Amino acid sequence: MISDLKNKHLSTIETAVKALHTRGFFAQYPENPMPDIYGENADKEGRDKYKAMLNKNFEELQQENPEAWVGQEETPYEQQPLGVKYPYFSVETLVSRADEAFHQWRKVKPAERAALLVESLERMKERFFEIAYATMHTTGQAYMMSFQASGPHAADRALEAIAAGYEEQTRFPEHMEWEKPMGKYTLKLNKTWRAVPKGIGIVIGCSTFPTWNTVPGMYASLVTGNPVIIKPHPKAVLPIALVVAEVQKVLVESGLSPYICQLAVDADDHLITKELAEHPKVKLIDYTGGNEFGNYVESLPGKITFTEKTGVNSIIIDSVQDLDKVAQNLAFSLSLYSGQMCTAPQNIYVPEGGVKVGDEVVPFEEVARKLADAVTGLVNNPKAGPHILGAIQNPATAERVKEAASVKGKELLTTCDFSNPMFANARTCTPVLYEVDATEKESFSRELFGPIALVIKTKNTDQSIAIAKEMAMNYGAISCGAYTTDEETKEKIMDEMGLAGTPVSFNLTGGIYVNQNAAFSDFHVTGGNPAGNASFTNPEFVIKRFTWVGFREPVAS
Amino acid sequence: MISDLKNKHLSTIETAVKALHTRGFFAQYPENPMPDIYGENADKEGRDKYKAMLNKNFEELQQENPEAWVGQEETPYEQQPLGVKYPYFSVETLVSRADEAFHQWRKVKPAERAALLVESLERMKERFFEIAYATMHTTGQAYMMSFQASGPHAADRALEAIAAGYEEQTRFPEHMEWEKPMGKYTLKLNKTWRAVPKGIGIVIGCSTFPTWNTVPGMYASLVTGNPVIIKPHPKAVLPIALVVAEVQKVLVESGLSPYICQLAVDADDHLITKELAEHPKVKLIDYTGGNEFGNYVESLPGKITFTEKTGVNSIIIDSVQDLDKVAQNLAFSLSLYSGQMCTAPQNIYVPEGGVKVGDEVVPFEEVARKLADAVTGLVNNPKAGPHILGAIQNPATAERVKEAASVKGKELLTTCDFSNPMFANARTCTPVLYEVDATEKESFSRELFGPIALVIKTKNTDQSIAIAKEMAMNYGAISCGAYTTDEETKEKIMDEMGLAGTPVSFNLTGGIYVNQNAAFSDFHVTGGNPAGNASFTNPEFVIKRFTWVGFREPVAS
Repeated sequence: MISDLKNKHLSTIETAVKALHTRGFFAQYPENPMPDIYGENADKEGRDKYKAMLNKNFEELQQENPEAWVGQEETPYEQQPLGVKYPYFSVETLVSRADEAFHQWRKVKPAERAALLVESLERMKERFFEIAYATMHTTGQAYMMSFQASGPHAADRALEAIAAGYEEQTRFPEHMEWEKPMGKYTLKLNKTWRAVPKGIGIVIGCSTFPTWNTVPGMYASLVTGNPVIIKPHPKAVLPIALVVAEVQKVLVESGLSPYICQLAVDADDHLITKELAEHPKVKLIDYTGGNEFGNYVESLPGKITFTEKTGVNSIIIDSVQDLDKVAQNLAFSLSLYSGQMCTAPQNIYVPEGGVKVGDEVVPFEEVARKLADAVTGLVNNPKAGPHILGAIQNPATAERVKEAASVKGKELLTTCDFSNPMFANARTCTPVLYEVDATEKESFSRELFGPIALVIKTKNTDQSIAIAKEMAMNYGAISCGAYTTDEETKEKIMDEMGLAGTPVSFNLTGGIYVNQNAAFSDFHVTGGNPAGNASFTNPEFVIKRFTWVGFREPVAS
Repeated sequence: MISDLKNKHLSTIETAVKALHTRGFFAQYPENPMPDIYGENADKEGRDKYKAMLNKNFEELQQENPEAWVGQEETPYEQQPLGVKYPYFSVETLVSRADEAFHQWRKVKPAERAALLVESLERMKERFFEIAYATMHTTGQAYMMSFQASGPHAADRALEAIAAGYEEQTRFPEHMEWEKPMGKYTLKLNKTWRAVPKGIGIVIGCSTFPTWNTVPGMYASLVTGNPVIIKPHPKAVLPIALVVAEVQKVLVESGLSPYICQLAVDADDHLITKELAEHPKVKLIDYTGGNEFGNYVESLPGKITFTEKTGVNSIIIDSVQDLDKVAQNLAFSLSLYSGQMCTAPQNIYVPEGGVKVGDEVVPFEEVARKLADAVTGLVNNPKAGPHILGAIQNPATAERVKEAASVKGKELLTTCDFSNPMFANARTCTPVLYEVDATEKESFSRELFGPIALVIKTKNTDQSIAIAKEMAMNYGAISCGAYTTDEETKEKIMDEMGLAGTPVSFNLTGGIYVNQNAAFSDFHVTGGNPAGNASFTNPEFVIKRFTWVGFREPVAS
């Protein structure tokens, strides 16, 4: 059975390995939820299946003897509980089951593990629409983002981790006859090498991207032979529960233990994450979320950690060709999922002397106004606004938007109110925008998660670059956008932001945005600043999950 | 000039990269100090040059304005000071010079950095004999080991790090035109990626292998664009000072700053290592030495660390073909450099029921006696003893041998006395050997650095394996030897010691020893247990020294 899977999927894996190295466009899973791609009734069937899961126990997992059934999700579109209940297990049960499964899973060959995991992605593909609705009604993402981010884009990120893990484990020979000429004779040793997995991994999910941010670490640990325990955010369980269920089905069909990949949910009255993370048998931790908990995770002794925390993302505006197009592009980036992306821009640096547009210089005030107007235009466009903004996942985010009014600066956009025509009770908020002077560092030297952006008036572009770099080095950054028509300035930005470990998107206009990261091409959070080191997917993301161990013996004479 | 070096050395680098992946025998630098290889007078000239350096200032470094001239080396063969003085600089001076040089070095392309570094190894090769005598008279190694370990073997390890660093930095394209089909149009982005070095590296050397353990980290940091500060052990400076001097010459000849690679020595009245390691500008630390300081290094926040600490290395004896050959092989491993190798065996597990030899069973007592006799025979052989044992680097090691008598067990060999016929005043010590029961865990659950070994009486081989694994997991292990003629037992040992991240050499007899590690084939300290993670040279050893950063921009239409 597992050898059938290997035959079925090895070419996909090898194609994916090649794509890792060319870094051109590559997608295994189509991002477009069109009927001609996913089937005439795929959307409707997915929605119906999603609805059928509500207010019930989630019975698809193959984890025996739950101690309780728990769940606390609610949809930001209705502000109502989903009513889905998941099986609860104590940390000891989860860890001892994982430990037993470890000794089975580590003995499966890397190519077979990879193939089994690709099969699970093929099964996940069949449920992209269910996952989309589950994502929409836990995270508040709009429909299109829910489909793309939690479905095809997440699956591509997972495939990327599988491919990288497969490649790294097969990069050195399993066996080599080593022959050393010693003058009068030849010394001959049979040498073998094994990629030994580290042990139990846990993956701690976040509330905004429950599959996209979880599957890379999950599949990276699995492909390298480690059992995983997936601990989603208690408010966003269902999307990843569907993925775990599919992995378990493929494991069991292959004669393997479902405990190689377990779902762990928090009890309704207490969170289990710290107990899990601190368990001595847990060796690998993947984490997405806030800084405070992320720093705690990184500080745990004896663990190998991969974190994606938060950062202060910058936009540097120096000189542009078409200011309106720039404003529209940035308005979209600020509004997309109401700024609840780790890659969303926050600090927009504009020189006090204005921005060069072709041969003219547009004054600072006009640049700021154009930005605010572009946001207003976008969110008030009934064909765009609701589909871009989505809803606010966490009530605390809406609170943060109100508090932003205390920033020491000038109000550019303060009205957050927005009505979603399809969901009257949705928790929504449009971007707010304040103008702040570069001297008011306290106002902008921290992440303001959500639809909050600041236009920061700098002395000149050199100061813009210096502050953007300082923010990234001190507080982390996951993305940076820059607009300049000057080659020397562009090189300076690459050099300085490069030192701050921050990728830069230059002169984006039209249908491509600073927030977006493509699997197989854009590295994500590569560890160069305090925002984290999750690095989807460069070699570091997979090789730290196993140890090379060599064995040798003289060749029998 | 630097492009000439690239033309000169690129094929060597590419050959080395291939060797990394085949893992067969590969050596760029011949290990045999024969006149037909290194020249008729190479040995004599090297010795003369070494002698000419004594009792003088070491003037070869290109580091300006020293604050003092310091030095505290002494030869274990004479127990006399070398009298070599090195330029002393404050930590602030070292770090600010490195920081300035960083911005020059990081802009040199990986292939050019690699070529420049290979050139420095070619220059080092011209000085292998000087380095050998300097090593002999600081570490106490015998002549042959001094030559091989500090010369060709070290240079091969350095080349391995260069090759791995070059490969990893050129593994992804510098540029790619990314084209995403969007239905009605194609989105086109120019993407570029840069391997951005982390910053200043320091390399903290040890007193026993001053070049072999230093050059891998030194060259790994350099090839990935980081300036390095080499901080040798105050008792073993000269061998690596010669290497640093050669690197500086090549740098200056190439129009680059010598401060890209600096030597840092401790003041005579205080050590500077902690101040260096804690400096916020220092990002990378390579360390070889004891556990206590190694754990401190690993605990420093915000640093990327590579450590080689100590461990409890085990020998498991289950069943053998020829017990005498096994005893001779182990006697050599115990005696080599008087057990002052990180790979030297310490705990030898023998079942109380004896060892199967062919069809017979040899009782425990006879196995222990044969081991002791083999050691005695070897050290008393005037043609072998002095050339294998060398001298004792540190007086504390000799003290430790005396204290070993307090072990709760039976004395097998207690006389440590040995006279070196060529150096009457040498600090020497032959291996001592005690028999200990497996229940006396306190006696053997720690590293006893130096010529101290224990024959541990276990219930059976399963217990031997269990204890060897436990020692490795709790206290670290860098090597393990095992003797078994049973395939099932061999697989069990591989499986269990693999989980403890410990390489195993099986059934070694004749001219190959558990202590020995070959560059380009044997991974060394790969991070699977507390002995460290220095991992010469697997990908992890180089990729953590830089960050991938991507840049992208729409293709101009």
